Amino acid sequence: MRQPVALAHACRLINHGPTVLVSSEHDGQRNVMAAAWSMPVEFTPPRVAVVIDKSTFTRELVLASGRFALNIPCRAIADLAYTVGSTSGRDEDKFARYGIAPFAGAALALPLIEGCVAWLECRRIAEPHSEQAYDTFFGEVVAAEADARVFAGGRWAFDDGNADLHTLHHLGGGNFGVVDATIQSHVMKGRS
Amino acid sequence: MRQPVALAHACRLINHGPTVLVSSEHDGQRNVMAAAWSMPVEFTPPRVAVVIDKSTFTRELVLASGRFALNIPCRAIADLAYTVGSTSGRDEDKFARYGIAPFAGAALALPLIEGCVAWLECRRIAEPHSEQAYDTFFGEVVAAEADARVFAGGRWAFDDGNADLHTLHHLGGGNFGVVDATIQSHVMKGRS
Repeated sequence: MRQPVALAHACRLINHGPTVLVSSEHDGQRNVMAAAWSMPVEFTPPRVAVVIDKSTFTRELVLASGRFALNIPCRAIADLAYTVGSTSGRDEDKFARYGIAPFAGAALALPLIEGCVAWLECRRIAEPHSEQAYDTFFGEVVAAEADARVFAGGRWAFDDGNADLHTLHHLGGGNFGVVDATIQSHVMKGRS
Repeated sequence: MRQPVALAHACRLINHGPTVLVSSEHDGQRNVMAAAWSMPVEFTPPRVAVVIDKSTFTRELVLASGRFALNIPCRAIADLAYTVGSTSGRDEDKFARYGIAPFAGAALALPLIEGCVAWLECRRIAEPHSEQAYDTFFGEVVAAEADARVFAGGRWAFDDGNADLHTLHHLGGGNFGVVDATIQSHVMKGRS
């Protein structure tokens, strides 16, 4: 069900603030961690920011390889999302331990996570000051894909029929909010 | 229903990626705009990042005054959130036009938006390069409040009884996802 997402629409994948899984690889080592803190910073070219703590193994791999992927997990794999956010990959390969099936990203050959609903492969834009002072990494999205059952025509389409595929929004301590409703708002006329 | 939020818990208010309203004031001029792109970058001291485009009046006010507030809107005011994200305050005061009732923030006297469910007053941390290259502003949260009906004990508490107060997550074009369910996940044991 994976389909390419046009780069002009890539930032819509994280526009609504989902928790993401950051996956990385360098020289035969790989890792995946959860990150509640990411956001787009530009639509065209698509650029993102993500916070990667100094203590993480992911940070070593991203700095060494100059690339990372954002994988967007869903309700069906909430336990996995919490688990990879609660353990370190420094001593043990999380893919093997937790039975995570990766597939290779088309653009940067990053290990992408099966069971997620969208994937963004990013090149790190080196910003040593932001990385040091705020743990904030900037990246340019070079390829994106999404599960066509829940993201189609450049839009998320959350409904009752695909509830298992709805995105996760971390409230703390493994408690996730799930986007289970959508509303269409309208511009108010206001007082003239 | 507004109650202070401990600074140690302030970043939990935006941890799950809600759309925010950025309010600002300088020398008698004030404004409010919507921003889907914000995130915490540090818990202690509480620091945030928010994208403020170069075209916005808000950016002028933030640069001149060195402060901004993040107000978190909810389902009940989705039209207002979309409206202040679709209009410019450069030529007309949005507060007057749309009947927005502000109250003064306790710490920085910023105009905070009635009807929202949480409020963070922030001092800008001057980062001219990030602001210029990525429109990304960093700020330190100096005071936070939340509506006790939906955020209590340092946690969001979304349930069927407070559905009007659930946060908004912008999907695009005025379509908002709403967090209407929460799930408690668990750390997996994995293969030993």
